[in-house]
Amino acid sequence: MASSLSRPIAIIAGAGPGTGAAVARRFAQTYPVVLLSRSASSLDPLVQGINQNGGSALGLPTDVTNPENMTSTMTQIQNHFGADVSIAAAIFNVASKFSRSQFLESGPEFLDSLEATARGASNFSKAVIPLMLAEGRKDTSHGERYSPTLIFTGATAAMKGGSGLGSFAMSKFAVRALAQSLAREFGPKGIHVAHAVIDGIIATEMTKGYKDDTPDAKIDPNAIAEAYWFLHTQPRSAFTQELDLRPYCESW
Amino acid sequence: MASSLSRPIAIIAGAGPGTGAAVARRFAQTYPVVLLSRSASSLDPLVQGINQNGGSALGLPTDVTNPENMTSTMTQIQNHFGADVSIAAAIFNVASKFSRSQFLESGPEFLDSLEATARGASNFSKAVIPLMLAEGRKDTSHGERYSPTLIFTGATAAMKGGSGLGSFAMSKFAVRALAQSLAREFGPKGIHVAHAVIDGIIATEMTKGYKDDTPDAKIDPNAIAEAYWFLHTQPRSAFTQELDLRPYCESW
Amino acid sequence: MASSLSRPIAIIAGAGPGTGAAVARRFAQTYPVVLLSRSASSLDPLVQGINQNGGSALGLPTDVTNPENMTSTMTQIQNHFGADVSIAAAIFNVASKFSRSQFLESGPEFLDSLEATARGASNFSKAVIPLMLAEGRKDTSHGERYSPTLIFTGATAAMKGGSGLGSFAMSKFAVRALAQSLAREFGPKGIHVAHAVIDGIIATEMTKGYKDDTPDAKIDPNAIAEAYWFLHTQPRSAFTQELDLRPYCESW
Amino acid sequence: MASSLSRPIAIIAGAGPGTGAAVARRFAQTYPVVLLSRSASSLDPLVQGINQNGGSALGLPTDVTNPENMTSTMTQIQNHFGADVSIAAAIFNVASKFSRSQFLESGPEFLDSLEATARGASNFSKAVIPLMLAEGRKDTSHGERYSPTLIFTGATAAMKGGSGLGSFAMSKFAVRALAQSLAREFGPKGIHVAHAVIDGIIATEMTKGYKDDTPDAKIDPNAIAEAYWFLHTQPRSAFTQELDLRPYCESW
Repeated sequence: MASSLSRPIAIIAGAGPGTGAAVARRFAQTYPVVLLSRSASSLDPLVQGINQNGGSALGLPTDVTNPENMTSTMTQIQNHFGADVSIAAAIFNVASKFSRSQFLESGPEFLDSLEATARGASNFSKAVIPLMLAEGRKDTSHGERYSPTLIFTGATAAMKGGSGLGSFAMSKFAVRALAQSLAREFGPKGIHVAHAVIDGIIATEMTKGYKDDTPDAKIDPNAIAEAYWFLHTQPRSAFTQELDLRPYCESW
Repeated sequence: MASSLSRPIAIIAGAGPGTGAAVARRFAQTYPVVLLSRSASSLDPLVQGINQNGGSALGLPTDVTNPENMTSTMTQIQNHFGADVSIAAAIFNVASKFSRSQFLESGPEFLDSLEATARGASNFSKAVIPLMLAEGRKDTSHGERYSPTLIFTGATAAMKGGSGLGSFAMSKFAVRALAQSLAREFGPKGIHVAHAVIDGIIATEMTKGYKDDTPDAKIDPNAIAEAYWFLHTQPRSAFTQELDLRPYCESW
Repeated sequence: MASSLSRPIAIIAGAGPGTGAAVARRFAQTYPVVLLSRSASSLDPLVQGINQNGGSALGLPTDVTNPENMTSTMTQIQNHFGADVSIAAAIFNVASKFSRSQFLESGPEFLDSLEATARGASNFSKAVIPLMLAEGRKDTSHGERYSPTLIFTGATAAMKGGSGLGSFAMSKFAVRALAQSLAREFGPKGIHVAHAVIDGIIATEMTKGYKDDTPDAKIDPNAIAEAYWFLHTQPRSAFTQELDLRPYCESW
Repeated sequence: MASSLSRPIAIIAGAGPGTGAAVARRFAQTYPVVLLSRSASSLDPLVQGINQNGGSALGLPTDVTNPENMTSTMTQIQNHFGADVSIAAAIFNVASKFSRSQFLESGPEFLDSLEATARGASNFSKAVIPLMLAEGRKDTSHGERYSPTLIFTGATAAMKGGSGLGSFAMSKFAVRALAQSLAREFGPKGIHVAHAVIDGIIATEMTKGYKDDTPDAKIDPNAIAEAYWFLHTQPRSAFTQELDLRPYCESW
């Protein structure tokens, strides 16, 4: 495993179909990628596809909202890649389940989205940042390295609430707060923390049938992946903390 | 209790010293007030003070983050004021404990503030809104009534994160998301939902000694109370959803 | 004129029908008011109404976008009230003409709104602030005085642009920028500078017929006036820099 | 000139040293570039440098704040490249002169920055958008073309005012308002309109000596250029309307 010791990895939480898969494939062009998802079944085809196409992917089913799970996941990663593995890019793409419901008719599940997302984002960040700081300390005299980058996938509801959207908006606002706070704390230490506001419907299997009459009215997950890759390649003199991504025809 | 049947109440969660007490006294000039706080000891002097000064206050120690506690609190309120009690004003002033700490050194308590505040805000809103809708439906042909008003106390950290402030900012962002969402859902039903961004240090016993060399450099809690009362009196053609409150000499 | 020497005035630019008139009447309950408008004819009935109802109003037709006009206006004010007149409240309510037009079909008038509004807001501020600083310096040991207050009327388009709204939005964004900058410069000197985001249709003669089927769906100008008066009365430990005003049934 | 007929150009207003030059060089890797600046002398070395390095640059001294100048500039462009020239990318990088001054001590020049910048941004947009719409209509069946892209360079002061910064902030707020309005009007027509918030000091000849003790504490103009190029390459299913660019060590 000598060679991998000097080679940082990328890690993606929420590596299901759609954005997560596209991001995984994009970062696998440069790094070995570790893919986290609650269900092994959603990871398998993605891992196989990357490995068959010249990349290197490791799928680890885990529940990022559980701190102990996240700790054992990091141990598995170090067992696999070596104790001195470092992280070049970490993407938190865990989906808050979008739901619209009347506030008074919602039950205790009203807070599930918030607690799962916030706890997941917090656990994930605590697990990956030490290995990102390690990456930042590495000798970069031989060959270019990009600043270690931590990206959170956000949504319109990270910017404004909506009728019936309290549960979803609380979770998205909270993740944005975390992203801003980490950016201010770890930017000076060389870690690039960014938040992407996805403002539109993403083109996935699940959204087939929506807006199909207008070409490109849904966001191509690969375009999100390219934006994340661009964020990762920014030099530290010019980090982007926040950008929006929106179809040309979306009204907002 | 015949007379109280037709008289709506105000309810304040987080009625400790400082802002909560000032708001309680201000609304007690017009309404019987119900004061919620985790500790009975912090409620007692406030309740006594209001009752001795011609107001009517009922203190109920409760943990708003616990849905069952909140349910039994509402039952106590209906037992006391009558089953048809309605709520004219509800103030959520539960303090997220402000703390600044390095992210990687924080433990599981990192999420405590978020979960307590978000759960508290959500439980409280679910409990009070039905009685606010009831207030909105009452016959107002005899004498003026103000629109039922639900106010959340926010902070600078509701608008932007900060280094070491992730925990606090997540909780404040989440409450703002809830306030915006409820405003959009219940505004059309006549409930005024507002969010106040308190941007500065509040003058309390605890903050004695800070900024004492500059007069009025700390926010007078009574000024917050007046602002909340103003929000309550706005007619429905011109609701304010958000305002900031900041000392004249604060830089921002 | 001895008595007026110690009595500050309020001044309103854009004192036409609607918001300007309502604000004039509200502030005339406490102060002599000076009303500025381009056309004398729109001032006359308002001035007469105030004077007949126990208030004191002086109407001065002037073009606030012209620095020389504004200078001579201030001279007229000092001739009338005495050289040591001071200003307790100044309201900039000059309407940017709302217009929606396709960008490529707009002519040089595209910039008219911006230049008139920005120049007007700037001229007005330069003229009134010295007399507001004078008010702040006055001996207030005998009786309460409120902090001198400068309020700018803004709109939804101060917060976000819109298709075909470039001209209007540029003017409203620019006024908001000025308000924020003056708040930060003159707040520490005791002047309260605020910006009100009017997000909805105001109920005036001109808007009769709009939304008439929903009660209170248009903003009552008197509610705006009350909000401005509330801003004026805030103590300096708790100034509001920005608030929104919006009908309960408006979607946003 | 047959070949140029099918080849779109890029046009940069404010092509002085620093950001403008870096953007010109970046876009010259793909397109013939037209460079506008008030002074020929600042254009010459840049134009020569691009032409000597395999690019194609045309420098046109012009005052973009003057509509007639801008019209004759477009005529020169069509004379040079052919009547059917189209525009793939247009960058408005005209600098509002940054200045901090006490409001009451500023003279009529207080509005110069606003009027020049706003008029410049408006004139420039009116001149280039028709040729961008033409580019969007071209047959793209042979080879990839990017969506025509109009980018405005903004600053921190586009987001918030500051003491003594009223003049600069008004101009930057106004340009942001224009960018948002044009994005909403022309996005659905396939033009990508973006606004970049440059939040930090740019490393140029002029800023030598600032923050020199911290590496990369000033923004590399080439990093801005790369970000603009990235914006240009975004597919229309995922346009970014706004991003910030800020050194890792900047506090904000």
